[in-house]
Amino acid sequence: MKYSIDTANNLARVGSIDLKKGQIITPAFMPVGTYGAVKSVTPEEVNESKADILLGNTFHLMLRPGTEVIKLHGGLHKFMNWDKPILTDSGGFQVFSLASLRTISEDGVSFRSPVDGNKIFLSPEKSIEIQHDLNSDITMIFDECTKYPATEEVAKKSMELSLRWAQRSKKRFDELRKEDSTRGEAIFGIVQGGMYADLRLQSLASLEELNFDGYAIGGLAVGEEREERLKVLENLIPHMNKNKPRYLMGVGTPLDIAESVKLGVDMFDCVIPTRHARNGHLFTHRGVIKIRNACYTRDTKPLDEECECYTCKNYSLAYLRHLEKSNEMLGSRLSTIHNLHYYQMVMSNIRDHIKEDSLESYIEYLRSIYLNNDTS
Amino acid sequence: MKYSIDTANNLARVGSIDLKKGQIITPAFMPVGTYGAVKSVTPEEVNESKADILLGNTFHLMLRPGTEVIKLHGGLHKFMNWDKPILTDSGGFQVFSLASLRTISEDGVSFRSPVDGNKIFLSPEKSIEIQHDLNSDITMIFDECTKYPATEEVAKKSMELSLRWAQRSKKRFDELRKEDSTRGEAIFGIVQGGMYADLRLQSLASLEELNFDGYAIGGLAVGEEREERLKVLENLIPHMNKNKPRYLMGVGTPLDIAESVKLGVDMFDCVIPTRHARNGHLFTHRGVIKIRNACYTRDTKPLDEECECYTCKNYSLAYLRHLEKSNEMLGSRLSTIHNLHYYQMVMSNIRDHIKEDSLESYIEYLRSIYLNNDTS
Repeated sequence: MKYSIDTANNLARVGSIDLKKGQIITPAFMPVGTYGAVKSVTPEEVNESKADILLGNTFHLMLRPGTEVIKLHGGLHKFMNWDKPILTDSGGFQVFSLASLRTISEDGVSFRSPVDGNKIFLSPEKSIEIQHDLNSDITMIFDECTKYPATEEVAKKSMELSLRWAQRSKKRFDELRKEDSTRGEAIFGIVQGGMYADLRLQSLASLEELNFDGYAIGGLAVGEEREERLKVLENLIPHMNKNKPRYLMGVGTPLDIAESVKLGVDMFDCVIPTRHARNGHLFTHRGVIKIRNACYTRDTKPLDEECECYTCKNYSLAYLRHLEKSNEMLGSRLSTIHNLHYYQMVMSNIRDHIKEDSLESYIEYLRSIYLNNDTS
Repeated sequence: MKYSIDTANNLARVGSIDLKKGQIITPAFMPVGTYGAVKSVTPEEVNESKADILLGNTFHLMLRPGTEVIKLHGGLHKFMNWDKPILTDSGGFQVFSLASLRTISEDGVSFRSPVDGNKIFLSPEKSIEIQHDLNSDITMIFDECTKYPATEEVAKKSMELSLRWAQRSKKRFDELRKEDSTRGEAIFGIVQGGMYADLRLQSLASLEELNFDGYAIGGLAVGEEREERLKVLENLIPHMNKNKPRYLMGVGTPLDIAESVKLGVDMFDCVIPTRHARNGHLFTHRGVIKIRNACYTRDTKPLDEECECYTCKNYSLAYLRHLEKSNEMLGSRLSTIHNLHYYQMVMSNIRDHIKEDSLESYIEYLRSIYLNNDTS
């Protein structure tokens, strides 16, 4: 993996990550393909949105269809018919948010499968092995996502456990890469430490000693206020290695993304564009449109006249509303195609504005269309 | 509209229907786009299956989104983004199968909308006007679908009412065509008469006096035995005008279709390929596959190795099963793409076998793969 900066403007930067399976132009948005599919769309449609990379969820895939099935296909790319890069999360976040009857030890986490109730054990080594079997292009370390809110003491203990798990993750990753050099191109560390600036810096410093290919910021978008999140980023990012990509996990709305880019973030993933599409919330140049609204019943105009996506080029607001009201699956799909396209267009605009030193004005524009109409 | 016979072999024939919006090669299968969408797929995907024509349901569309909304778009083609021919049914069948609190008079049918409970009146004139507003390429007359079973007396009364409605339908159609010659290219009569050969022949003879562009056989696939249906066709079709297309409404499985083609039918519509796809029942060269079956969990082979559809070229049985088990919408879509493709391939095989005078052997093959494994 190689990361290059093309243009930097204050903390924001435009760059690229070169992986064997393709180049990722940053700042980048990664659509989420939880179960080996970006919900309701094909890989070709994701590709048409101009996404360079997808995110796959280790936790979900290990439960269904199970790592073994995907391994039989040679990995997740072949299984889901996507030949560009894939980043997999480690399952850490989901273990802490979705699994029941969970017990954490130094060794790892035991929990009950939400699919069939079976007892499952996930450890740093196990997570890295699964991501290896998925043939992930960017592997994430297995960490504990510190709960929110947490006292400084709790956040510190959690962060330190994550550091020890980071070390074990890296070790197992290096071993597997030695065994099979065609797999495991990159591994990212994840900075934890809750909302505490000092803990975040300690976490970062220790992770950097392990020399990861990139650094993620975890434990955010977990219920904290927007200002709190921005403060963590403000305090942390200036200390991060300039020559490594920075990935803010699980964020966010177009405005969240633009504000975070301004503070130095390069990569994002979030279910908002796909989930909101299925709920009939569509992002447009005029703000969010709720497509079930009666005002669109007779509207023969496209959803977004400035948009070049398949949905906007071929269908009217009235048709999209009709599909939603009739519970036609095609509605979710056309909406998802649009929202994914919109998000990539936002990323493209963000990159252009960084190059033209006008990111602040773009953020102002996003504020004007979304702040009184926020669906996050 | 022009119908030409290319090859006839006994009663079966290969031909074509030329309409302004495109040519339909017959025997033809029309996918059903009830609410202005073939469930889960785009018009482009329907087109890739090689369908020449779609069916739209007047009854459903008049209720949702309402004729007025579609009229604002210039018609159903533009509304749903399909530029090839569309045949619309008259709403007759659905009024009798779906509407509640229905009262029939000589004038027409009153019923409650299943969508909002509003009182609605549908008559021959009204149905033809709606189909005109939908800009249907092939309009169907408004008839009463005789219930099954029915005594000869009931079937006769019903058939005679349908004949009077056929006359009114044709009259209104001709008036509207005079007003706007760009619309209403063809209108088909519908033969009724229940399971009674004499009534069917009376119905046919009276309809032929009205000189329709084609003749449909209605009131079948309503619960009767397969043998009973084939007998109606056997008795009726030899009396039908050779130079007009014959359309068997609402039929059926691949085997039903092939057997009916042998008896002289040229056109079919049915929800089986799309509905079965959504239920995980997939048609293949080896018979029906139930994709949720555990035996496909680890199967990396395509669904149908002889199939050239998008689904079979890019995905494994294990992946399709996984999507179904995970309730991913993409599963329904990939299954629908395949089943629609399979149906058009059956039609293509049927046409080839007619040309090679070997239709009976193809029917035998379909019997061998489906009769012990029928999902109709």
